Amino acid sequence: MDDLLAGLTGGDRRALSRAITLVESTRPDHRARAEALIAALPDRQALRIGLSGTPGVGKSTFIESFGMRLTDQGLRVAVLAVDPSSARSGGSILGDKTRMDLLSRNPRAFIRPSPSSAHLGGVARRTREAIRLCEAAGHDIVLIETVGVGQSETLVAQMSDLFVLLLAPAGGDELQGVKRGIMEMADLILVNKADGDLLSTARRTVADYAGALRLLRKRVQDPEGFPKALPVSATTGAGLEEAWAQMQALAGWRRDQGHLDRIRAGQAQDWFLSELRQGLLARLQTPAARRCIADLGGRVAEGAVPPSVAARQMLDWLARPRDSSDVLPDLAPQGPRESVRVDATGGTGDA
Amino acid sequence: MDDLLAGLTGGDRRALSRAITLVESTRPDHRARAEALIAALPDRQALRIGLSGTPGVGKSTFIESFGMRLTDQGLRVAVLAVDPSSARSGGSILGDKTRMDLLSRNPRAFIRPSPSSAHLGGVARRTREAIRLCEAAGHDIVLIETVGVGQSETLVAQMSDLFVLLLAPAGGDELQGVKRGIMEMADLILVNKADGDLLSTARRTVADYAGALRLLRKRVQDPEGFPKALPVSATTGAGLEEAWAQMQALAGWRRDQGHLDRIRAGQAQDWFLSELRQGLLARLQTPAARRCIADLGGRVAEGAVPPSVAARQMLDWLARPRDSSDVLPDLAPQGPRESVRVDATGGTGDA
Repeated sequence: MDDLLAGLTGGDRRALSRAITLVESTRPDHRARAEALIAALPDRQALRIGLSGTPGVGKSTFIESFGMRLTDQGLRVAVLAVDPSSARSGGSILGDKTRMDLLSRNPRAFIRPSPSSAHLGGVARRTREAIRLCEAAGHDIVLIETVGVGQSETLVAQMSDLFVLLLAPAGGDELQGVKRGIMEMADLILVNKADGDLLSTARRTVADYAGALRLLRKRVQDPEGFPKALPVSATTGAGLEEAWAQMQALAGWRRDQGHLDRIRAGQAQDWFLSELRQGLLARLQTPAARRCIADLGGRVAEGAVPPSVAARQMLDWLARPRDSSDVLPDLAPQGPRESVRVDATGGTGDA
Repeated sequence: MDDLLAGLTGGDRRALSRAITLVESTRPDHRARAEALIAALPDRQALRIGLSGTPGVGKSTFIESFGMRLTDQGLRVAVLAVDPSSARSGGSILGDKTRMDLLSRNPRAFIRPSPSSAHLGGVARRTREAIRLCEAAGHDIVLIETVGVGQSETLVAQMSDLFVLLLAPAGGDELQGVKRGIMEMADLILVNKADGDLLSTARRTVADYAGALRLLRKRVQDPEGFPKALPVSATTGAGLEEAWAQMQALAGWRRDQGHLDRIRAGQAQDWFLSELRQGLLARLQTPAARRCIADLGGRVAEGAVPPSVAARQMLDWLARPRDSSDVLPDLAPQGPRESVRVDATGGTGDA
């Protein structure tokens, strides 16, 4: 464990990979080690940039091109993917990594695909912890990227200092397809493919989005002129310098005004509450609890116990102290099944 | 309590009202009495009809007209409203009751507005228990009505034997406004206002919905020809007889095929699991837990404890046995604050 921590903070990429694999594990002994590791990390901070872009918008090319530009300036960049659907769709992220050919072989860059958990809560926990690991490993920029499916954009915005939306040049109708809630999260809208034949369409799209952004309610964490829309071309590199300058300006202002600390403090509290709720509900997933739920659930389905009575009995069972082996030797004499029987013979009935 | 049960099962409306007020209460002593009452109810079953209709579709007029038709046949009808927004919007249900003037004064009918809880989970529990109370009180039909806001339609469908969607005559564009998920829950779509000038529009709308329903995946609990779309007029009463005949046919088929028992068994299990999760999360809401969460949350926001470590400490605190007075006299010597300090001096840091 000390080796892992030393390797990680020393900038060893393999140690970082192993540490992320550890925080992705759901095995209880791994969880305990992961928590100890997280608690022991030094307090280094990177700039956390959330990036969302739907498939086809050129996100991989943008990350490759933007990431190479940052590493050329001597910055160390980590890229983490948040894609709860990747477990099912399979391979899209590996595809991304192949498409980010230069960046993935760059010694100043670290790219990690989304974990193969279909559960958004699991992906959220892992990503939050992986961000901390990348920071401790000395990365200056952590790019958290997501395809815009379901709640993943909100999740990524809740982990980032800045949230960037990468969009394609589009007509007025498609513009309306960007949900208001997503627009409200964006700090910067980048309209990609502002090159060749699409240049004028891209510029018009930027103007359209800029207009739409001006209609949104002013947020306290925005300096004058933000949120903002800009044209970029991941292929030619046009606009990337300006986009980076704007991100730095925004991050600098937020840091100076104390907003960054407030944003992170709020995010840390949200994370705490979310872990707490998940941890509490995980008590229903132990083998003994599952058996008890299956047993009571069967009796509820038969109509032998009303659902609310069964829930109360299960809650009492969960509250009862028992040894840590998590078996239930006392089910027969005083467990829920017996007390159910007593209730049932007392004339209970539920449809 | 025995009086309440006797009054309720004897068909006393005031006893039914008092019993529903009891299940709506969140006071622990009331909850205990409510659970005992529910557990002691005789096993009578009504036909549970879920009804959703957005404002302006004529839902109150429909319930008045349809309900009077049922009571005229000697049936006893209970109407329960599920409207989590009513606490905020205020008065809309009282307005409904005023608009259901005949039905509300009908001795064979019982109308109960939505409880004033803004929390969908609270409304769900109360409504499930209120359905059981109405059944025990001898009602033949329990109509569970909702305005289609948020998750309330799904909730009502999960408590019903049949789910009816009341819609207005509409053009093709508006037809697309009905979400696919809602369509998939419907057993019967009734297009209201099929009278006067709107008659031909209503008939066209029925044909459109019938076409859309045919595109949905066949469900095992549907006989040939269902789900089905029909025109009705709550004002003239046209089509109401046919709608009731279709509901009876569907319910009868489902009962004969054993689907109704299966549906109700599944719903009872869902109810059990939902109560269980809510009951577990309610442990975070006790005064002592709130104090502990506020304390740990503050330290998380300061960066003194990593969020996942704080969550683990809070979970340990919740798992520790303590007396039922729910105070935390041991917070200082061995509560989370102290152990946090130990960790923090050990070099913890989180952004």
